[in-house]
Amino acid sequence: MKELELVEYIRKRAGRPGKGVKIGIGDDCAVLEYDAKHYLLWATDMLVEGTHFRLKGTPYRKIGRKAVAVNISDIAAMGGLPRHVTVAMGIPGGMAGSAVRGIYDGIFGICKDHGIKVIGGDINRSGRLIVDVSIMGLVEKERLIKRSGAREKDLVLITGPVRSGKKEHLDFAPRLKEARFLSRRCKINSMIDTSDGIALDMGRICSESGVGCRLYEGAIPLSKGLTLEEALYSGESFELVFTMGVKEARKLFLKRRSFLPQAGGRECEYFVIGEITPKKNGLCLIRKEGRAGALKMTGFRHL
Amino acid sequence: MKELELVEYIRKRAGRPGKGVKIGIGDDCAVLEYDAKHYLLWATDMLVEGTHFRLKGTPYRKIGRKAVAVNISDIAAMGGLPRHVTVAMGIPGGMAGSAVRGIYDGIFGICKDHGIKVIGGDINRSGRLIVDVSIMGLVEKERLIKRSGAREKDLVLITGPVRSGKKEHLDFAPRLKEARFLSRRCKINSMIDTSDGIALDMGRICSESGVGCRLYEGAIPLSKGLTLEEALYSGESFELVFTMGVKEARKLFLKRRSFLPQAGGRECEYFVIGEITPKKNGLCLIRKEGRAGALKMTGFRHL
Repeated sequence: MKELELVEYIRKRAGRPGKGVKIGIGDDCAVLEYDAKHYLLWATDMLVEGTHFRLKGTPYRKIGRKAVAVNISDIAAMGGLPRHVTVAMGIPGGMAGSAVRGIYDGIFGICKDHGIKVIGGDINRSGRLIVDVSIMGLVEKERLIKRSGAREKDLVLITGPVRSGKKEHLDFAPRLKEARFLSRRCKINSMIDTSDGIALDMGRICSESGVGCRLYEGAIPLSKGLTLEEALYSGESFELVFTMGVKEARKLFLKRRSFLPQAGGRECEYFVIGEITPKKNGLCLIRKEGRAGALKMTGFRHL
Repeated sequence: MKELELVEYIRKRAGRPGKGVKIGIGDDCAVLEYDAKHYLLWATDMLVEGTHFRLKGTPYRKIGRKAVAVNISDIAAMGGLPRHVTVAMGIPGGMAGSAVRGIYDGIFGICKDHGIKVIGGDINRSGRLIVDVSIMGLVEKERLIKRSGAREKDLVLITGPVRSGKKEHLDFAPRLKEARFLSRRCKINSMIDTSDGIALDMGRICSESGVGCRLYEGAIPLSKGLTLEEALYSGESFELVFTMGVKEARKLFLKRRSFLPQAGGRECEYFVIGEITPKKNGLCLIRKEGRAGALKMTGFRHL
């Protein structure tokens, strides 16, 4: 059973999210009514030894840190601010106390950096290390950004060069500041964090929004040593991909001194990588020589 | 590193729960401010193959069902009502689609029974099956029941006979109705669900409340084939253990037609098993012949 099929199955079984729930399955976070001014954001993201990291050679702190960072990234992708986490752990029987404390050091370190409190959890024995963080955050109602708001003719942007999932995945900084800047100062129509490669994540935006998209090979920024294929189909990059109208994008780049990503170099954090098209056009990649091809709906395989 | 030590370490590192949080680490749920009338309850409980169940011979539905039931039990123990869950799964690579759907069938089945909506989750590949459910619920402010409210001279009660963790643990019904009855009709001073054996869980109530307790061997109801040792130190029973003043308990039993648990037989759902004592008396078990011994602070070992 493929992951996309399974998610579709779960979503059908779950039905309508019901009273008090603005968004259920199908976005980076669930969105719940909270008070007059805010929605409550809720997400969960699990790290599994052997799938997301190897225990051997990985500093324990970094594992704990990443387990929280991927969850912060989910809150960021909705335009919100993280507030609280719970941490459910599966700990191998023979693991040393210092190793376990090292993981929690990483967890508490990144939580402190972002003003997040650890307010609950669960501890279990497990064959392999499992760290499952659940996160809760708040977003001002007018600043909520969904996957489903992309519109035809929107530009598609990304917050930074796609990096190698293999080498750098433990050290990424969740794009929280950037997301908060965007949700406050700009009119962003849709957003997602690229945890599974740009192609699959753009596919999610297009599917939720009922649109197609066209990405330009030459416009996708890559970190050193990364191929385009890797960026599209496997990157665990945790950049934000978002869409906005052309006029809005112009304002964003005026604020940032540069419209063309190529011209901005390191100073410009936002790169235009494509545009939103009608649904019937599907998901399409324009190669450097101008040839068009289909984007495959595969990314990092969770199953 | 023992679990109790680890929890103490985490709790110290976590510090004060901060603004908007009424209870952080140290109860069945985290308790957050919500609106004028309600608190928000939040808990997470993970099931790990090999630790909490064996895949071989266990119906998939029952695994999914239990993963939600243990979380409902956490909400019940605070006096609240469950509303939403997220489900993070680690799925073994070779698992058949029908098996995965079976697990979700169990999840959706029990959620439907309790009016709970599945509103998010995460899917990962894993060596062994992991099901980590996070749950959110609400409780009317005046109906919140904490672990920390036990008072000297309170009676200690339990909602039913302790059952065998080995045989019946997959089929237990979370004591939600009973908890809601208690939180509405009675003044309950403290409550916990007995997921780790009565001794460890009473230890938690006593530690949070700054009191001691005295349990009576002859008063602890056991299901067929279960020894007292098992009930005290290993039961995965998911009954509610709670404490209340003697006068309040009398009212409860008048409502239920019987004060003495022995007299009520199957009809009476509440059994008095002991009483709360000053802290200096510690945790104590009175044997049938009248001899007193210490309760050991061990239960189901998660680590």
